[in-house]
Amino acid sequence: MIHNLTTDAQTNHRSIRKFKDQILNEEQLATLYTVFQHTATSMFMQNASLIHITDSKKKKNIQKLCNQKYVGAEGDLFVFVVDLYRNQQIREQLGYDDGRVHTTDIFFQAMEDTILAFQNVANAVESMKLGYVPLGTINDHPKKMLKELDLPKLTFPVLGMQVGVPDQAPQLKPRLPLKFSCFENEYKKDFNVKDLANYDQIVTTYYDLRDANRRIDSFTKQITGAKLNNHETDRDELPELLHKQELCLDWK
Amino acid sequence: MIHNLTTDAQTNHRSIRKFKDQILNEEQLATLYTVFQHTATSMFMQNASLIHITDSKKKKNIQKLCNQKYVGAEGDLFVFVVDLYRNQQIREQLGYDDGRVHTTDIFFQAMEDTILAFQNVANAVESMKLGYVPLGTINDHPKKMLKELDLPKLTFPVLGMQVGVPDQAPQLKPRLPLKFSCFENEYKKDFNVKDLANYDQIVTTYYDLRDANRRIDSFTKQITGAKLNNHETDRDELPELLHKQELCLDWK
Repeated sequence: MIHNLTTDAQTNHRSIRKFKDQILNEEQLATLYTVFQHTATSMFMQNASLIHITDSKKKKNIQKLCNQKYVGAEGDLFVFVVDLYRNQQIREQLGYDDGRVHTTDIFFQAMEDTILAFQNVANAVESMKLGYVPLGTINDHPKKMLKELDLPKLTFPVLGMQVGVPDQAPQLKPRLPLKFSCFENEYKKDFNVKDLANYDQIVTTYYDLRDANRRIDSFTKQITGAKLNNHETDRDELPELLHKQELCLDWK
Repeated sequence: MIHNLTTDAQTNHRSIRKFKDQILNEEQLATLYTVFQHTATSMFMQNASLIHITDSKKKKNIQKLCNQKYVGAEGDLFVFVVDLYRNQQIREQLGYDDGRVHTTDIFFQAMEDTILAFQNVANAVESMKLGYVPLGTINDHPKKMLKELDLPKLTFPVLGMQVGVPDQAPQLKPRLPLKFSCFENEYKKDFNVKDLANYDQIVTTYYDLRDANRRIDSFTKQITGAKLNNHETDRDELPELLHKQELCLDWK
């Protein structure tokens, strides 16, 4: 293992869900924007945008939709937006048709741009001894969120991020052993759930130490549990929402 | 701007397309895997896998499909795979139905896991003074690539990465000014292409210095040009391919 500021922060990554009552200063903010801007981008299309939410009413509304008390609370709230509107506008204003802007291919490239930018900013955050939590809940109610953010067509808010000065020091969450996720040449299809017994035990111990009142939980229990069980959720609005946004129109 | 090993590497990011004839050593490889493993993951589902391609025939075949001479050449080739197969197998082998595994919602979360892991590894690469180029071309011929990689259902190769010791020092590519991509509270819908005139000039100068023989090219010329113009491409197989992989089955 090669140790440096970057890799040490990466291998010690924890999501932070409790921050000190302090916001980012101008220099920190400028650094995160500059890092965002310099992320690798597919075909140099630069299909990502970032919204810093500072308005307290907006923060409250987003918090409500995400249903997590730390969203929009202490620290700073960002929303990472897949953005094909800008390039569509360039084409339209210069007299061109929309070309491939509405294809799944181009949408996926924009998703890549945006999610790469998210992790790039995340690593910058941790290099500055700040912390963050990714907010997948930004899409718990996709249509309402789109309205709240007042986004134009050809955009899609993919992830939120709450950033700040950590006010907690959670334990490192044990990850799947590498033999299950990293392969040489061949993806190993002969997966056997029994091989996860040791890892399950490690995860159970982690939860037990974190919160003695929590029911005993292992990795396989989570995968066979509520998260992936069939249930109704507004998150199933996603395909419809993307079409409403004029994205992925070739996906019928 | 706050300078440290991480942010300095990030704001000086260039894609490297020429590497010294040298492969990663065991320690470098182990570091990249450990970073991959510790990336933030949606709902702790760990829906990403990584394949290190070392087999020379496989490298040649992938190079052919990507149609880029540096793919699988000097350095090391990786493929980042959206992976819902593992969790589906856990459910099946433990006697559960597939639950939400086939939904667009869960696929998007897996895309996030995988692309976050890509950028995390990318930052580790650069922190070690190595370089990389993202390979979006891994999906130029999605069906053929899937076959070449011999991947099971519920997986999808989203990005490739060629990594190595840089044997070139390209110029920094000028990015969109922040006012076009970073907003406070409100996404600015009143985009005016005329405001890009200065940036277009900067991009033209960049290409001019990089290669005097290259046709004059600006940002808006690229956006209104071949990349986004209507054309036939195997990349439009993506929606069909995902269904073939039993992904996004709620997207009809």
